Amino acid sequence: MSVAGLKKQFYKASQMVSEKVGGAEGTKLDDDFRDLERRVDVTSKAVAEVISKTSEYLQPNPASRAKLSMLNTMSKIRGQVKNPGYPQAEGLLGECMSKYGRDLGEETNFGGALVDVGESMKRLAEVKDSLDIDVKQNFIDPLQGFCDKELREIQHHLKKLEGRRLDYDYKKKRQGKIPEEEIRQALEKFYESKEVAETGMYNLLETDIEQVSQLSCLVECQLQYHRQAVQFLDELSHKLEERVSVAASRPRREYTPKPKPLFDFGDDNHSNGGYSTSMPPPPSRNSGLQVRSQLLPSKSRPTFAPLGTYTGV
Amino acid sequence: MSVAGLKKQFYKASQMVSEKVGGAEGTKLDDDFRDLERRVDVTSKAVAEVISKTSEYLQPNPASRAKLSMLNTMSKIRGQVKNPGYPQAEGLLGECMSKYGRDLGEETNFGGALVDVGESMKRLAEVKDSLDIDVKQNFIDPLQGFCDKELREIQHHLKKLEGRRLDYDYKKKRQGKIPEEEIRQALEKFYESKEVAETGMYNLLETDIEQVSQLSCLVECQLQYHRQAVQFLDELSHKLEERVSVAASRPRREYTPKPKPLFDFGDDNHSNGGYSTSMPPPPSRNSGLQVRSQLLPSKSRPTFAPLGTYTGV
Repeated sequence: MSVAGLKKQFYKASQMVSEKVGGAEGTKLDDDFRDLERRVDVTSKAVAEVISKTSEYLQPNPASRAKLSMLNTMSKIRGQVKNPGYPQAEGLLGECMSKYGRDLGEETNFGGALVDVGESMKRLAEVKDSLDIDVKQNFIDPLQGFCDKELREIQHHLKKLEGRRLDYDYKKKRQGKIPEEEIRQALEKFYESKEVAETGMYNLLETDIEQVSQLSCLVECQLQYHRQAVQFLDELSHKLEERVSVAASRPRREYTPKPKPLFDFGDDNHSNGGYSTSMPPPPSRNSGLQVRSQLLPSKSRPTFAPLGTYTGV
Repeated sequence: MSVAGLKKQFYKASQMVSEKVGGAEGTKLDDDFRDLERRVDVTSKAVAEVISKTSEYLQPNPASRAKLSMLNTMSKIRGQVKNPGYPQAEGLLGECMSKYGRDLGEETNFGGALVDVGESMKRLAEVKDSLDIDVKQNFIDPLQGFCDKELREIQHHLKKLEGRRLDYDYKKKRQGKIPEEEIRQALEKFYESKEVAETGMYNLLETDIEQVSQLSCLVECQLQYHRQAVQFLDELSHKLEERVSVAASRPRREYTPKPKPLFDFGDDNHSNGGYSTSMPPPPSRNSGLQVRSQLLPSKSRPTFAPLGTYTGV
């Protein structure tokens, strides 16, 4: 840094200290400027918070969001952009439904319906993936770009303006000790910066229709997502209604208890207590104690009809 | 507990130990029974996991889910059921948009659009609230009831069956030491339990169309949610399109720099560096150094026209 630069840094720091600590008042900017500044500040905060809240809206689970941003970095490195790379809640529900549906058997009412609903949930998850990608590309990224470029540029100008204001105020306070020409130049630079910042802020606020277009993109993405969801769910709803009406028209099958199996303790092969479902042995086979019993379907049944067979010692 | 009861407990425990530790094989149930058991088990797991995954689908943020279940307990105590009691991500986004929109001013393009989108997001959050309540009442609660009642009842029967099986196997192993009549009674009770459990499981699986109806309710709730979302977003989309086209047809206002203010260092009231935006003083007032300067809008502007006024010492 040059000697002049160092001197300037010192002036600014000195003025800042006398303002912050000593309570000295610096040159105030006009109300119009301050209004522009306030509106740019609100715009900046609005954009930052809308970006953050939109991410939360797309992915309310903070763990998944963290994973997403990590994966985004990874896929940027690898040049992949297609998949958001984290499981959607719809998809997890769908996976679980399809899995249990297949386990139960698609030929059963519940199993088949679970597979149907599961597949639709997985499609919903895909549509949700598209929503995430679309909103990211058409809303979050442009807004982020606006933050990173236009807003940052204005912040740069405002910072420069503040530096020049401090420099000017420092010199102005030392009128007489500092040449008038130097003070005049400081004022000039201050105003030059003010106009650059003012023009930038004015133009930024004047072209806010761009942000409206981006909001419009967000809404279009959401609209497309919900429309596709309606389409899938409508099909699914008809499928399920049909399942219900088919099942309702089918006569209900009552449970018919199987014939009681035969127990044969005498046989060494079954000493550990297996039982065969063969019919009872012919009456001729009657070695040792033999008890046939039909088991009670409920405690209240009073009669006891022998069916099972004991072959005791 | 009676002496007989204690004895029975001992038999069962003893048999369980010889099976678990000693590798003894107990009486096996037939394949059909085991298939029923497996299917009921899958149904039970399916229902439990579908309930859990549906909650995650409705509210992917675990913190909000925890808050929700706490609030549900609270509102049950207070007898409130209307509001799920946690902020939806759509609602938070909507609040943020509306707030910043009003801060920016609804007369600006971005401010007005933010308020429009924010209000719609808040309505989306309300529809999401309804989805949560509807799915809870028409899907999760009935399924939970099915878990708590039918499935638990079958589990009770299966547990009882297992106890009777152990009792029977213990006694069977001790043929000769235990009266045949006692063994016969144990077998009877075992079969009685088996039939109760079997009938229960069969009926539960046979009436699985009830679970299909519940799935159908879930889908109807989702369908209604997405349909309402489409309706709101469609209206909003038109509103935003209109905003964009109105703004596009409006001539763009260029920034016109304000006339430069007057600086007056001589005045003690402004010694701290305020400046007034009054017009420059009449030429007659010319005490001390006076410099009028029009400030440079850009560094490249070569000419320097005085406009501002210094009043030096």
